[in-house]
Amino acid sequence: MTQASRRALFKNAANLLIGAGLGTVTCAQAEQPEQKSWDETYDIVVIGSGFAGLAAAIEARQAGASVIVLEKMRTPGGNSIINGGILAAPGCPQQKAHGIQDSPELLAQDMLKAGLYLNDPAKVKFIADRALENYNWCVNELGVEFHPTAIGQEGGHSVPRYVRTMNGSGSAYVQKELEKLKSLGVEVRLRSYVEHIVRDPKTQVVEGVQIRQGYRFPKAESGKPVSIRAKKAVILCYGGFGADVAYRTMYDPRLKAEFQTTNQPGATGELWRETAAIGCVQIQQDWVQCGPWCNPKEKGMGLSVVFNQSGGAEFGVWVDSTGRRFVNELANRKVRADAIFALHDRGLKAYAICDQNGVDHVTDLQAKCVPYLMGIGAVEKFDTIDALAAAYAMDPDTLKATIAQVNDAVASGKDPLFGRYMNKEFKSMNRGPWYICECTPKVHHTMGGLLTTPEGRVLDIRTSKPIEGLWAAGEATGGVHGAVRLGSCATLDCLVMGRTVGKAAAS
Amino acid sequence: MTQASRRALFKNAANLLIGAGLGTVTCAQAEQPEQKSWDETYDIVVIGSGFAGLAAAIEARQAGASVIVLEKMRTPGGNSIINGGILAAPGCPQQKAHGIQDSPELLAQDMLKAGLYLNDPAKVKFIADRALENYNWCVNELGVEFHPTAIGQEGGHSVPRYVRTMNGSGSAYVQKELEKLKSLGVEVRLRSYVEHIVRDPKTQVVEGVQIRQGYRFPKAESGKPVSIRAKKAVILCYGGFGADVAYRTMYDPRLKAEFQTTNQPGATGELWRETAAIGCVQIQQDWVQCGPWCNPKEKGMGLSVVFNQSGGAEFGVWVDSTGRRFVNELANRKVRADAIFALHDRGLKAYAICDQNGVDHVTDLQAKCVPYLMGIGAVEKFDTIDALAAAYAMDPDTLKATIAQVNDAVASGKDPLFGRYMNKEFKSMNRGPWYICECTPKVHHTMGGLLTTPEGRVLDIRTSKPIEGLWAAGEATGGVHGAVRLGSCATLDCLVMGRTVGKAAAS
Repeated sequence: MTQASRRALFKNAANLLIGAGLGTVTCAQAEQPEQKSWDETYDIVVIGSGFAGLAAAIEARQAGASVIVLEKMRTPGGNSIINGGILAAPGCPQQKAHGIQDSPELLAQDMLKAGLYLNDPAKVKFIADRALENYNWCVNELGVEFHPTAIGQEGGHSVPRYVRTMNGSGSAYVQKELEKLKSLGVEVRLRSYVEHIVRDPKTQVVEGVQIRQGYRFPKAESGKPVSIRAKKAVILCYGGFGADVAYRTMYDPRLKAEFQTTNQPGATGELWRETAAIGCVQIQQDWVQCGPWCNPKEKGMGLSVVFNQSGGAEFGVWVDSTGRRFVNELANRKVRADAIFALHDRGLKAYAICDQNGVDHVTDLQAKCVPYLMGIGAVEKFDTIDALAAAYAMDPDTLKATIAQVNDAVASGKDPLFGRYMNKEFKSMNRGPWYICECTPKVHHTMGGLLTTPEGRVLDIRTSKPIEGLWAAGEATGGVHGAVRLGSCATLDCLVMGRTVGKAAAS
Repeated sequence: MTQASRRALFKNAANLLIGAGLGTVTCAQAEQPEQKSWDETYDIVVIGSGFAGLAAAIEARQAGASVIVLEKMRTPGGNSIINGGILAAPGCPQQKAHGIQDSPELLAQDMLKAGLYLNDPAKVKFIADRALENYNWCVNELGVEFHPTAIGQEGGHSVPRYVRTMNGSGSAYVQKELEKLKSLGVEVRLRSYVEHIVRDPKTQVVEGVQIRQGYRFPKAESGKPVSIRAKKAVILCYGGFGADVAYRTMYDPRLKAEFQTTNQPGATGELWRETAAIGCVQIQQDWVQCGPWCNPKEKGMGLSVVFNQSGGAEFGVWVDSTGRRFVNELANRKVRADAIFALHDRGLKAYAICDQNGVDHVTDLQAKCVPYLMGIGAVEKFDTIDALAAAYAMDPDTLKATIAQVNDAVASGKDPLFGRYMNKEFKSMNRGPWYICECTPKVHHTMGGLLTTPEGRVLDIRTSKPIEGLWAAGEATGGVHGAVRLGSCATLDCLVMGRTVGKAAAS
């Protein structure tokens, strides 16, 4: 066929569309040709094998649907499997054991406040209301092992309310989810890169996906093309774009390549681009959270977060290079990361400091944490405050005055300088030796994403109505955390919304 | 033709596309049929007749291109024509007459700081560097009449640096731009609603637009279809979406219908949806600025802004219902609007108060402003502070203490409470009568929008590369103002970037 006759035939098709009453010819989504045949068919195709995707697959299968989970990397679990394993659980037994008063309402209030009220209050309430039930599901349905008494407080939370897995990692959930799916006969297909989401040109329904099977990240042309039909739904749980410098700098130009990330390398934006291009609404992508508690001597998240957040924040103090406090050590992540950026602009650095009591709390959480961090030089130990100050070129009197001020706050239960919540188990800092660890921000979590209905249907940019056959949950979505996600709330969101969407899409 | 045979032909066309090596069949933009014929042809089609669109059209025509400007409303000028007419002009004669030190660097620094560094530093520098030249262009090329000595300071600016038009309105620019276009023989076609932007399916080039001519806002089906080819470029200057409740609440759920707007009713989001659907990158749409200085007794922007910003802020004080200051009266708009939202959450309101000296400054700006505002009950006048306090149920001693504190700040030149810049012409508040006006936020400006290259080419969401034939300037774009736009910088951005894009697209 000649080029000219090809063009003629194409024009005929275009005219035909107009004649068929399909509206004007430039509507981008309206002119995708139909997918004519499929290599495979399932009721539900889930994209992504993190907390949300696996939870969606479990519920969808339990509701009777045939399900496949697609994962582009060669191992399952995405960022979830390298997550710290903490989970907000207001009302859990661990809280009760410590006599901590909490409620779903207080959790929702904390999430909205941190989110600068950019979150959807209905979604926040939905998730907070299901937090305790979700904890129980993890224990009873999945068999996740939690520390039986430990309860922790992330920045921005009014009270300590997170439980943690015994292995101190999100892998404790992922492994149990994978076991459950195996017992349910659901395949989690690795090295399956989704190239396109097929949206029917006439009906506007999402019908399936085109993948490259046997894909080798990050080689675009690797693997072979396979098309998979989703009779009921495609569920998007593809996570965030924290590791994608080109994508993230479009929305926040500060987050350049020299900035590290806590994410696994596969946290890239190709499906963010694809869903935008097929007409999904994407919101709030400029809200990219940087974890303020990393250390430049580690790659990725590392273990410094345990020291900097627990011993060095709940039971210690954050100071700048002059030995002065500069932020509420339990403020939300954005406040603390922005405060550290501002220090760097002035040529200063940020450090977490605690005494042996603080390190004992760290050791209680992860026994090998401090020895490991000392081994790589991230944490340093000194017999006296003077020795520590000398090693970091701080004025010793300034640093001592700072520590005295924190100890006053411990005694009074009130922090006049920054209004920090004073942990009742914090006994003041006076027992050497002394420990110090630098805090640097790394790109951690993308709050924005697909705009969905409260039950998880993805909305169309032309109509603001749900796209038939397309659902989403987890970090791929926006509107749950608003401007700032609180620690221990991502796992909660992913599990609750993953399950909700899996159930609803299968019904 | 039967339904079945239509479908068969469509499938053939689809297969043909695959055969033609056009990649996988689901790429949304790739399958738009070609536009086969055009009703009209120009080198450049400009969408929108505000500051930016008109400036782009002037430069494009002066560069030798044939140009048409399309405006959906029945009058030209969009929000620009109801804008307050102020323009940032560091280094202008008015500043020199007042002995104010300023520079493009200081302006850029203020814009980046207010923008929380979400703006593109290169774009900010580009605009700030051209601010003085832009002022001179307005004077010499357009013949805009500015107040010869008045220089003002909007919130977030380090120094007074805005000039104002003699008529106190953006219409002073728009009318001169329209006159210039008339003299250049360029048509500004009203009631021309752009339904679609035509992007060629194979070349991916933007080739023109499909409009409804004779459109009657807001009737979607009014007018007749006309297609207009743009041989060189379509320039998008369609402004913001402040008046579009359905669109704006997708990105910021707080901005519901009960919220008023300062915008004209045509500031709606249909072309924001259209450009997203044809594959343009849209960024930072959740940053929607609310003007903190409106009054609920006026519709739209009104004139209360003149009182609340000049007499009541530069030369007065903002207090809450208890008579206490609650914010830096010259903080940026977001800080002030958020502070008022927080007051409302606590059941309090916000008021601007000044004495006769303050009102004299207002009168100097707009002679009839205060009598008008008193006539509609927005401003009230009292002989004494006690009478004012009694009428607004404030404790008079608290209010007097607040005023005394401000007068101390005037005397020392330093505001210990909020760090406000103290205007050198502020002589303290002690000359009755006393004036008061409530301040309420209204949706004012959308900071986000199309992501462009520094010269104004629109980027594609799949590739992050410029879309051939598509340019943008003004409020339709994102990345210039970042998180928070400073007052007097939108006009600057629109004129500088409108002119830049018009010149470049025509060349």
